[in-house]
Amino acid sequence: MSKARAKKIKLLLLDVDGVMTDGKLFLIPSGESTLEAKGFHAHDGTGFSLARLGGIKTGLITKRISATVRLRAHDLKIEHVYQGAADKLATFREILAKEKLQPEEAAFVGDDIIDLPVMRACGLAFAVADAREDVKDEAHVITDHRGGEGAVRDAVEYILKAQGTLARCIEGYLSDRTPVETKMV
Amino acid sequence: MSKARAKKIKLLLLDVDGVMTDGKLFLIPSGESTLEAKGFHAHDGTGFSLARLGGIKTGLITKRISATVRLRAHDLKIEHVYQGAADKLATFREILAKEKLQPEEAAFVGDDIIDLPVMRACGLAFAVADAREDVKDEAHVITDHRGGEGAVRDAVEYILKAQGTLARCIEGYLSDRTPVETKMV
Amino acid sequence: MSKARAKKIKLLLLDVDGVMTDGKLFLIPSGESTLEAKGFHAHDGTGFSLARLGGIKTGLITKRISATVRLRAHDLKIEHVYQGAADKLATFREILAKEKLQPEEAAFVGDDIIDLPVMRACGLAFAVADAREDVKDEAHVITDHRGGEGAVRDAVEYILKAQGTLARCIEGYLSDRTPVETKMV
Amino acid sequence: MSKARAKKIKLLLLDVDGVMTDGKLFLIPSGESTLEAKGFHAHDGTGFSLARLGGIKTGLITKRISATVRLRAHDLKIEHVYQGAADKLATFREILAKEKLQPEEAAFVGDDIIDLPVMRACGLAFAVADAREDVKDEAHVITDHRGGEGAVRDAVEYILKAQGTLARCIEGYLSDRTPVETKMV
Repeated sequence: MSKARAKKIKLLLLDVDGVMTDGKLFLIPSGESTLEAKGFHAHDGTGFSLARLGGIKTGLITKRISATVRLRAHDLKIEHVYQGAADKLATFREILAKEKLQPEEAAFVGDDIIDLPVMRACGLAFAVADAREDVKDEAHVITDHRGGEGAVRDAVEYILKAQGTLARCIEGYLSDRTPVETKMV
Repeated sequence: MSKARAKKIKLLLLDVDGVMTDGKLFLIPSGESTLEAKGFHAHDGTGFSLARLGGIKTGLITKRISATVRLRAHDLKIEHVYQGAADKLATFREILAKEKLQPEEAAFVGDDIIDLPVMRACGLAFAVADAREDVKDEAHVITDHRGGEGAVRDAVEYILKAQGTLARCIEGYLSDRTPVETKMV
Repeated sequence: MSKARAKKIKLLLLDVDGVMTDGKLFLIPSGESTLEAKGFHAHDGTGFSLARLGGIKTGLITKRISATVRLRAHDLKIEHVYQGAADKLATFREILAKEKLQPEEAAFVGDDIIDLPVMRACGLAFAVADAREDVKDEAHVITDHRGGEGAVRDAVEYILKAQGTLARCIEGYLSDRTPVETKMV
Repeated sequence: MSKARAKKIKLLLLDVDGVMTDGKLFLIPSGESTLEAKGFHAHDGTGFSLARLGGIKTGLITKRISATVRLRAHDLKIEHVYQGAADKLATFREILAKEKLQPEEAAFVGDDIIDLPVMRACGLAFAVADAREDVKDEAHVITDHRGGEGAVRDAVEYILKAQGTLARCIEGYLSDRTPVETKMV
């Protein structure tokens, strides 16, 4: 049962395009090259804060390499950031080794076939609401929201609720008084 | 009853990301940093004009800090603009004190849990159509439109309709002949 | 009947934000100011070509002023471009005078209350599928598509179909061999 | 029957705006001109990889000319890239001649009337889910997803499934270990 699986999770790993975003790569011409813009959702941002309060570490495993992802990950204080990861399963094992965790203690949120090997290996596999059908077929849980519209937040809340810590994390979040000063102006 | 609550409102306060926008932060690489772009809706812009004609003051209370919000707020002639507000309830009370208003004379539109303390304290709490479920559960009114697609306009019209001034405000708006010359080219 | 009204149309006038776009103003920080980006739809672009082939002139009447609108209008060879038009009805009459047309020979596509005076004065009033309710209530025709997703194209096809020229216009369009070289790279 | 048609396909040709994107042209002011940004979907990117593994060549035929398309096409290793193609049917024949293929060995994905001549001439015509009605009426297959949300991927999978190679292509894709280093930062 997925709730039993969720109780063991200590680490939440995520794909980026299609999970933290809606999968769209906005290309903007810039001289001889292009800039790649992405849209991240504020609800997911709060999700990372809640995960931290619940003692869940987070990480990104993505095949693409983009400057915005590095900066967004830093802004969200994500512990593990692996870009250019063509073999996501190898990266998954590397992170587990660093964190001294077993596969069943890690969850993964994916949207496309490249995510399947990690989804099969981890303890709790989420597919976003608009994941490709083949990916939804192999997920333990399908999030209520689409990628880039709160799917990561759904995954965080699912885990914290199963662990009985969600209410306490929300309370902790609401009593935090640190302003969020972004460096991006 | 929500309509009775709406009759007392003299001040409409708003969250930004997810309320005035669809919650998406578009990050564009720019040298070593990123630019943060946001999408505001024209229907909400008209909403601010109608509120002003109806004698309703407006304000923003947001945890993030962004240059676009400052400029958009100036463009819309929003009276109170508080960015970097981690404790939204404290900011809410500060604005009430400045305006010499009671909590029941202020409405708030929110979409996420950080908005709950103000939503519980104010006289009329709106949640946008795509607010997180926990937030919709505590709202007096759920707007017809999603954040960034006219939710603010819905809130303004709800208040003005309850106060019996909407038709007059629309008339006043239509007879205004001032061109809107934006500084943003 | 709306089809009878459509038969008389020689000029199609349009609002911009919410009609040629989805109403979103994307603000991008740029030094001390912001850039305002808008999303136009390719289906509407084809609509302007079809209108021209059908002998229907086109024009924009918008309250805002933006550089992208000027350039997009030029790209689409739109005959009348009025930005900063706070009194849309006065602009409407000015265009009619220039074109030596009667009000019933002009159609207008709107999405918000500022469009109502022209919609009431013209021969055929369209509201986009996601127009504000008050605006849909006063339209002769509601387009199948939302603003920025093909609503302008819907209006063009409605008129040409009523005039019995749509099939011929499509044929003419398909036999045109001029490449569309945009200046925007 | 469309599956029988799909079995013969060796070349998949695509329109760009509305097929590889949602049809929106985002215009960003830049000095005296504008930049044209487009949103491409990650799921389609994987689709091009799968097509290559399945021995299906790919190509773009688009009337517009844009720098982002050239760079995206290069990134996706698309074999044939024709921009500024006002007469898509002539371009279609040119590509067939180069590849020494018959029309029934080529598929095309379109969304607007300009695509109809090639759709009528090729062996398998796809329309995206949000294509104009006239275009859907003439398609052999309508994709599950809208343009820019995975429609190209749908077309690729449809062909590979009919040819009995999809499972093998997915396997091959998952065992590929080459990182995707994009030049766009």
